[in-house]
Amino acid sequence: MMDADVIIVGGGVIGTAIAWRAALAGRTVTLIDPGTDDKASLVAAGMLGPVSESVFGEQDLLALNLHAIDRFPAFNAELEAASGQSTGLRTEGTLAVAYDSGDLAALDRLTEFRHSIGLTAERLDARACRKLEPFLAPSTRGGVLATGDLSVDNRRYLAALRTAAAAAGVRTVVGQATDVAPGLVRFRAGSGDVAAGERAELSAAHVVVAAGWGTARIEGVPDPIRKAIRPVKGQILRLRHPGSLPHIISHTVRAIVQGRDIYLVPRADGELVVGATQEERDDRDITAGAVHDLLRDAMTAVPAVSELILAEASAGRRPGTSDNGPILGPVTAAGAAASAGPIGDPRLIIAAGHFRNGILLSAVTADAVAALLTGGEPHQAWTPFNPGRLT
Amino acid sequence: MMDADVIIVGGGVIGTAIAWRAALAGRTVTLIDPGTDDKASLVAAGMLGPVSESVFGEQDLLALNLHAIDRFPAFNAELEAASGQSTGLRTEGTLAVAYDSGDLAALDRLTEFRHSIGLTAERLDARACRKLEPFLAPSTRGGVLATGDLSVDNRRYLAALRTAAAAAGVRTVVGQATDVAPGLVRFRAGSGDVAAGERAELSAAHVVVAAGWGTARIEGVPDPIRKAIRPVKGQILRLRHPGSLPHIISHTVRAIVQGRDIYLVPRADGELVVGATQEERDDRDITAGAVHDLLRDAMTAVPAVSELILAEASAGRRPGTSDNGPILGPVTAAGAAASAGPIGDPRLIIAAGHFRNGILLSAVTADAVAALLTGGEPHQAWTPFNPGRLT
Repeated sequence: MMDADVIIVGGGVIGTAIAWRAALAGRTVTLIDPGTDDKASLVAAGMLGPVSESVFGEQDLLALNLHAIDRFPAFNAELEAASGQSTGLRTEGTLAVAYDSGDLAALDRLTEFRHSIGLTAERLDARACRKLEPFLAPSTRGGVLATGDLSVDNRRYLAALRTAAAAAGVRTVVGQATDVAPGLVRFRAGSGDVAAGERAELSAAHVVVAAGWGTARIEGVPDPIRKAIRPVKGQILRLRHPGSLPHIISHTVRAIVQGRDIYLVPRADGELVVGATQEERDDRDITAGAVHDLLRDAMTAVPAVSELILAEASAGRRPGTSDNGPILGPVTAAGAAASAGPIGDPRLIIAAGHFRNGILLSAVTADAVAALLTGGEPHQAWTPFNPGRLT
Repeated sequence: MMDADVIIVGGGVIGTAIAWRAALAGRTVTLIDPGTDDKASLVAAGMLGPVSESVFGEQDLLALNLHAIDRFPAFNAELEAASGQSTGLRTEGTLAVAYDSGDLAALDRLTEFRHSIGLTAERLDARACRKLEPFLAPSTRGGVLATGDLSVDNRRYLAALRTAAAAAGVRTVVGQATDVAPGLVRFRAGSGDVAAGERAELSAAHVVVAAGWGTARIEGVPDPIRKAIRPVKGQILRLRHPGSLPHIISHTVRAIVQGRDIYLVPRADGELVVGATQEERDDRDITAGAVHDLLRDAMTAVPAVSELILAEASAGRRPGTSDNGPILGPVTAAGAAASAGPIGDPRLIIAAGHFRNGILLSAVTADAVAALLTGGEPHQAWTPFNPGRLT
């Protein structure tokens, strides 16, 4: 007698989206989540753009991101309907701005590249940029408006996923998974049915590990996968408008300031998220230097940021991978190498390593895992991201 | 039948120090405090120096500060003994540093000035500064070491005062004073003996108003005093050393960076306080611009600050006055002008407006009010700060 059809390890946007879709597909689902705030999903900015500096030249990842951005609005609409909650989706698009001729040349390359893959991109001169965003720095030389880019409030999005999952019958167990095997999860209970601190075990037809960078710490995940995933720390700021100030931007604004990529993501409720550092560290300390640099860079792009309230500085650990791509698919049993081909043991599935694209990829990740759980095939954009590529 | 010999309005360092000393003098004392964290005492850095830019030329305030710094160590020793708690007193002194010839000239004037009033001051070249504080910026041109300056951990200091006051028999009532009269206080109860939200009244032989900038909002405080006190917002940062890093400074470090006075106050427990803005505002918002400027200025003085953890950003409202001096003494009855001479009605005493020197002046303020309560005379350094000067 199994405890559930599917057990999912990890309650971030990936695990929770999978849980919701698996339950909608008629499966009994148990989600095991540590129940802490240590989730990359909570620290993200929620910027959803298929193209960034990092995917120039990474054709497979670009194709996956394009598939993801196509899928996101319908998935999100269904989520809002199912949960009765708003995720704060914004469709104004991203305005990337430049401060010197080098930046402008980079924006020209970005524009060309977007056009070449069928995405919108409109080159704007300084005047047009400031007409669109009047609070941009006077030193803005020009920009590119990408109207297809989206953003959501990552925290509202996760909250909506939780509501929808619970409504669809997903049972959540608070606990820290310690090891997995095909059809089996062992965990230290946090609270709930099992006494806190006790070790417990659950069995299911399928176990899905969606534990972000923590996937690397779970025994029984094949070694090549554990070795491929690492935490990449990001520090991020949440600003708020004081009562007297109108919202200072309406588009996501990106800029390269002193060689660092900075983004400012506005929310309808007056929050403005500024991100993010990328540090090869696995702590969550908020450092003076990172907060300083983020504030300086944000104020360089939009000087009026100085008038905003610094509501929160937080740090998360993104699940980076050895080739920057996510890892999705069934794997062979504990201790062994990942399967070389696309076919592993469907009783143990990995869905991790989403790095900087966790929110964007969450919808298509849920679709792909739901397909695997119901005997189907993931979308072909997933093929290059099979665990078998890691040896 | 009176409720107490003395009722004190305000539970910051001024009110609590007075309460403790009045109880030691054999008086029954009730302290009325809102019980919130909105206290300038909690936001301060605890730097105790009798001389700063602001008192060049303010002879009366300088004399009072010199009296205060003389008195502080003995008062603090007695406090630590009575409370059994450490206040984190540090005696390494203050190192003021310079980055250009203009700064160096200012340091020469400071050195001369300190010598002229009998304080120590040692001019150091860049090499000597960095020998004393190896993490100072390479751009440091020179400095002045003021060995007589002190610092305490303002939060530990207030906690010790509370413990000592309670041990001496002071009764604390949680409530927000709304109006006072000679021998009478009305307040909205917060919790405790009186139901929360109810208005209550207490009577005593003496009422002492030590409510910081909030003194201006209490009915019955004479109008000239209410008009003289204003909130001056200060934002301040609390940094902490990560486990791996040795403490980066051992002296209080002051610098003028881009025309702004910045100070870094180290604590034995690894905290490093960076302050402070001075803003003519009465909110407590933490603003992006202020945090940025404080971090930038601190990193300019001591670049390794960038490696520290930003543990807290907080804002307080100092009680500024029209002439930058505190206000201490008895006043005439409610609604009337403050007494013109030094003798008011001893049933209503004001001890407020300590601006940036609240911690430093707390000991001598407590002495002075205790003298007034027992028929004595405050130290002569207080004479210029009688409420009668405000008309």
